[in-house]
Amino acid sequence: MIGQSGIAVRNVLRADSASVAELAKFGVATIHEAMGRTGLLAPYMRPIYPRAKACGTAVTIFAHPGDNWMLHVAAEMLKPGDIAVLGTSSENADGMFGDLLATSFRARGAVGLVIDAACRDTAELTEMGFPVWSRAINGKGTVKATVGSVNTPIICAGALIHPGDVVVADDDGVVVVPKARAAEVAAAAARREAKEADVRKRLAAGELGLDVYGMRDTLAKAGLRYVADEAALAEERR
Amino acid sequence: MIGQSGIAVRNVLRADSASVAELAKFGVATIHEAMGRTGLLAPYMRPIYPRAKACGTAVTIFAHPGDNWMLHVAAEMLKPGDIAVLGTSSENADGMFGDLLATSFRARGAVGLVIDAACRDTAELTEMGFPVWSRAINGKGTVKATVGSVNTPIICAGALIHPGDVVVADDDGVVVVPKARAAEVAAAAARREAKEADVRKRLAAGELGLDVYGMRDTLAKAGLRYVADEAALAEERR
Amino acid sequence: MIGQSGIAVRNVLRADSASVAELAKFGVATIHEAMGRTGLLAPYMRPIYPRAKACGTAVTIFAHPGDNWMLHVAAEMLKPGDIAVLGTSSENADGMFGDLLATSFRARGAVGLVIDAACRDTAELTEMGFPVWSRAINGKGTVKATVGSVNTPIICAGALIHPGDVVVADDDGVVVVPKARAAEVAAAAARREAKEADVRKRLAAGELGLDVYGMRDTLAKAGLRYVADEAALAEERR
Amino acid sequence: MIGQSGIAVRNVLRADSASVAELAKFGVATIHEAMGRTGLLAPYMRPIYPRAKACGTAVTIFAHPGDNWMLHVAAEMLKPGDIAVLGTSSENADGMFGDLLATSFRARGAVGLVIDAACRDTAELTEMGFPVWSRAINGKGTVKATVGSVNTPIICAGALIHPGDVVVADDDGVVVVPKARAAEVAAAAARREAKEADVRKRLAAGELGLDVYGMRDTLAKAGLRYVADEAALAEERR
Amino acid sequence: MIGQSGIAVRNVLRADSASVAELAKFGVATIHEAMGRTGLLAPYMRPIYPRAKACGTAVTIFAHPGDNWMLHVAAEMLKPGDIAVLGTSSENADGMFGDLLATSFRARGAVGLVIDAACRDTAELTEMGFPVWSRAINGKGTVKATVGSVNTPIICAGALIHPGDVVVADDDGVVVVPKARAAEVAAAAARREAKEADVRKRLAAGELGLDVYGMRDTLAKAGLRYVADEAALAEERR
Amino acid sequence: MIGQSGIAVRNVLRADSASVAELAKFGVATIHEAMGRTGLLAPYMRPIYPRAKACGTAVTIFAHPGDNWMLHVAAEMLKPGDIAVLGTSSENADGMFGDLLATSFRARGAVGLVIDAACRDTAELTEMGFPVWSRAINGKGTVKATVGSVNTPIICAGALIHPGDVVVADDDGVVVVPKARAAEVAAAAARREAKEADVRKRLAAGELGLDVYGMRDTLAKAGLRYVADEAALAEERR
Repeated sequence: MIGQSGIAVRNVLRADSASVAELAKFGVATIHEAMGRTGLLAPYMRPIYPRAKACGTAVTIFAHPGDNWMLHVAAEMLKPGDIAVLGTSSENADGMFGDLLATSFRARGAVGLVIDAACRDTAELTEMGFPVWSRAINGKGTVKATVGSVNTPIICAGALIHPGDVVVADDDGVVVVPKARAAEVAAAAARREAKEADVRKRLAAGELGLDVYGMRDTLAKAGLRYVADEAALAEERR
Repeated sequence: MIGQSGIAVRNVLRADSASVAELAKFGVATIHEAMGRTGLLAPYMRPIYPRAKACGTAVTIFAHPGDNWMLHVAAEMLKPGDIAVLGTSSENADGMFGDLLATSFRARGAVGLVIDAACRDTAELTEMGFPVWSRAINGKGTVKATVGSVNTPIICAGALIHPGDVVVADDDGVVVVPKARAAEVAAAAARREAKEADVRKRLAAGELGLDVYGMRDTLAKAGLRYVADEAALAEERR
Repeated sequence: MIGQSGIAVRNVLRADSASVAELAKFGVATIHEAMGRTGLLAPYMRPIYPRAKACGTAVTIFAHPGDNWMLHVAAEMLKPGDIAVLGTSSENADGMFGDLLATSFRARGAVGLVIDAACRDTAELTEMGFPVWSRAINGKGTVKATVGSVNTPIICAGALIHPGDVVVADDDGVVVVPKARAAEVAAAAARREAKEADVRKRLAAGELGLDVYGMRDTLAKAGLRYVADEAALAEERR
Repeated sequence: MIGQSGIAVRNVLRADSASVAELAKFGVATIHEAMGRTGLLAPYMRPIYPRAKACGTAVTIFAHPGDNWMLHVAAEMLKPGDIAVLGTSSENADGMFGDLLATSFRARGAVGLVIDAACRDTAELTEMGFPVWSRAINGKGTVKATVGSVNTPIICAGALIHPGDVVVADDDGVVVVPKARAAEVAAAAARREAKEADVRKRLAAGELGLDVYGMRDTLAKAGLRYVADEAALAEERR
Repeated sequence: MIGQSGIAVRNVLRADSASVAELAKFGVATIHEAMGRTGLLAPYMRPIYPRAKACGTAVTIFAHPGDNWMLHVAAEMLKPGDIAVLGTSSENADGMFGDLLATSFRARGAVGLVIDAACRDTAELTEMGFPVWSRAINGKGTVKATVGSVNTPIICAGALIHPGDVVVADDDGVVVVPKARAAEVAAAAARREAKEADVRKRLAAGELGLDVYGMRDTLAKAGLRYVADEAALAEERR
Repeated sequence: MIGQSGIAVRNVLRADSASVAELAKFGVATIHEAMGRTGLLAPYMRPIYPRAKACGTAVTIFAHPGDNWMLHVAAEMLKPGDIAVLGTSSENADGMFGDLLATSFRARGAVGLVIDAACRDTAELTEMGFPVWSRAINGKGTVKATVGSVNTPIICAGALIHPGDVVVADDDGVVVVPKARAAEVAAAAARREAKEADVRKRLAAGELGLDVYGMRDTLAKAGLRYVADEAALAEERR
């Protein structure tokens, strides 16, 4: 029932707060890797200011192009620790969200917004420190004429998001962790970071990834051949 | 006569300076709303540095792809408080404007540039604090071979701009106010801001937009239905 | 043999270090002009943080979409002062490079990366001050399954780059200087900057480019006609 | 588990063939409307030749950029009446599918392909009459190095597709009907077409949609005002 | 007042029918050249079938994203020989127009549609021979919720269009001729075509454009230098 | 010296005509594969009409945005069997080529044009059967003001092309074969086609690619696991 309009679900099961707190410690790239390289939204989703970071449970919004009515409906559903996530029925880059809605969302406890449309009042939002990831920045206003949905599954920037899923966003983009997998993914992310810390030390000391990861044999089997220099290469091409 | 080449108009009627000063107090989104949601340039126009802000009377420039000759012609027409605005005869992203032209424009009193092409020397322009809104940043140089026009009506990023119109630009984009409407729009923007201040307070206190704006009835009439939770939703779908 | 896979060339002739040091003094736009307006990469290549600047000799990398294996092979080839430059066999925006590879590249002495794909861990890279120019920022991870090449000629963002060429990158984009022309281009850039310094002074004093560059006659010959004002223009159109 | 790699599901529940046959009678736009305006893939998906039309049950494929291995795995899962549908782990426009795979797919009974990547050998495919909807046409070949999945839920061109769902495609694009809703949607489409036939007759006879659909009152309430002519409009603007 | 909503103008002055008939004889490229290379809409506007051709007087429509209500209002304003032209308040690619509206438009005498949004039912429209130029083809349906305008000046695909202007469209795109200039432009187009006929004969006979247009001197003055062959070129580069 | 302006080379070494005739027998995808999957131009290059096909030796053209002067210079260099190939100094989509130039090119014996800009008069070109591959179709005219080059190496749509190289183009795109490799690539293409003929027969008879190519073991080693059905999959996920 992706894309169904006319429904607002009041109560949704959210990922457990301990897992959310754990996931908040990791970056988007790490979590995506820890999930087997899944869960990312399309890379056109960018933060409105550098170093923005958010991790919360999704209140999902389905809206129509040029219409931001459902963001007001969603405000009522937001609980502390939530992040609002909006997908649209067709591609749109109007400025659906600005500082008034951000004031309301913050008052409700929301930690940010991920919107597959545009954001405006970005100077004010930056000053407020209210992080938004969007496909565009656009002063264009919207109407309030057609209902969508709140807290039904949505597609946002090419990713499937259920209400209550964990959404983590930073400079690298946005990733969604299904609520049922939150604990497992947080643990995998922690293991990955521990392992990387060791690798980082070795690489910083000048060791090569080729040796750290043991790639030389597989590269040779895959057909990589070393040539001494450009002259040798030219020679063999004659 | 949009797009006519070969003409430079020396004197144009500019919006009155009091209205320009008034409009300078407001953001792009507010002014766009105060004009009945009109006047915005396309959202691909972005400032070259964060927090850039400009408000001035337009000296319009019509140029050809890869040719920045008319920017030099325009320099002579610039008066203190003007903002240069450039449209092209076809889509182009060459670096038509850099720090030398910015030095000249500033010496003439210009407050900024809006260019539907690219800008270069952006590090120097940022240091100078000379704001530019452009479709791209590009080191690519241009020729000076074909004449366009200065101070004739142009289309820039999808908006119609007459010489002397007020152009306001900030982080949210660029908006044009026809000179004859400058006073009226400034007044409407002031009213809008006053009203928003009150709404902002109520939202910050936790009131919902649904109640502040009285949306609950219209939402219901438009077909929005509340469901208790996901179980109830699943139940009714059987 | 552009795009050939399976070869890694160990030793390449690099541009002489004196010329590289000279070129490092100039911006991308200046160098591009000094080369007769050639050498630029496409403007979609953007630095991951403002004010990034790098100048080095190219270690070239040819990679396949979604596969960053060759970046590890390239690490071994990097010498102090090198800049890694990566082109792909088809358009791709996956996050091929992150903080671990940056740690390794820096340990080898590399001064930066130009990658016609995406970069991730951008917050960490910014903190490290390791500059990257890329077509996108994307948390998306990659596989290590298919070999490409290192230190063979590549096309990166529409420009032809040979190993050992000088690559200069800043806020305005990226430019490549063929190694054989490095000294000549550095000298031309110096001459250009010297000339511009004088022009800048005159423009800052209020002189017009029309007079500084002597454009009035050529503009008239090219058909530019001055009109007193909008009324005069309307009159002649009757 | 969207985007999970390494799994091929042999048997999936398909929509009932009677509903598929019913849905095949209608165009993409009609079915999308009959589903409450949901189910469409992004409009960048285009047929490789005009008047292409297909309706089948989905065998879903999840593939990595530049890698078409899973299309071979999918061939074994195809049954008569199926349509193959491929989504990727990141944006890619390589030519993953050509006339050899089409020969194999047709031999298995497949009625077409919907691929969020590119297609090649389009002249041969057109001659075969094997319809493909893709994001691009591209001669670029692919590797067979990394496994994805077959017959797990995928996102293709922004739409969620489960194995066994009905996928209908024509000149207007591609729509997916969840298998559980196939009969209901077919019935709704039939009702819609019946109603439209009557409207079409009235419109062809010169009646206005304003009257056929009874829009005049709602337009007036929504604020539409009629003005006699341009002079009257200019007059009231004074 | 570009972009004003809420107004429908019943009667507009149209270009004289003799000039429209004259302009119908020429292609888009010829008319654009005859106007001093102005008047073209952006090249993303494409016909929905090859060899589509239309020339008519514009009934202009201003619509909001995802909302096709104003097309119904426009139907009433259409007179025989008109072409409907639609611009939007922000970028949108929903399928605002299909075969029912085309049936109505044709019954009113309209000769085609130019729409800066998408079209659907393209197979039916092709069969009807009702030509449409659009930015996309998309099955996506729209709502009827927000009023725009009919017969006020609009921006469509970057061009300014007044009601009653002549709009000519073919395989090469779309061009607008201001109504006051219709006769003059038709005459200039005729002169251009006459001249081209002669040039075409000479070129077909093997004469070079260099000689027909007398370009050799200007090329030399502009700096073009002929070199005998690649060896000579390599020689002088030493 | 990519991108150097001001030079026209009269005589260039062309690939031998026997190899060109051989290569003309194969499609773009086959030749690209036969070259080790290299040589393709970017997929945005599309033929102006379906089933266009051309194979010739390149006369290369380097032009500036909005300026088609060099196409006239190139006409003189064209010999029977040549194909003109144009790259630009920066991205441009103006209509640089139309039916007059096509008349001239055909009179000189050219077999087609590949242009990284736009084409116009496409209806006339289609009627003439003069094939063009371009990035866009656009009525927009150009100036003749700035010199580029003819018969120097160029980058066109991301590929490096030397004068005299073989360029093959069809519905799938455009591929360049370096003149020194023409014979070798033609032979490899022939071998590939012979091999594919056999595979095609087996696939048409219902054999699976998995068996024809012997993929089952490598798929298993790469981690692909078969699951009986969706129930079994759900079971193991508990």
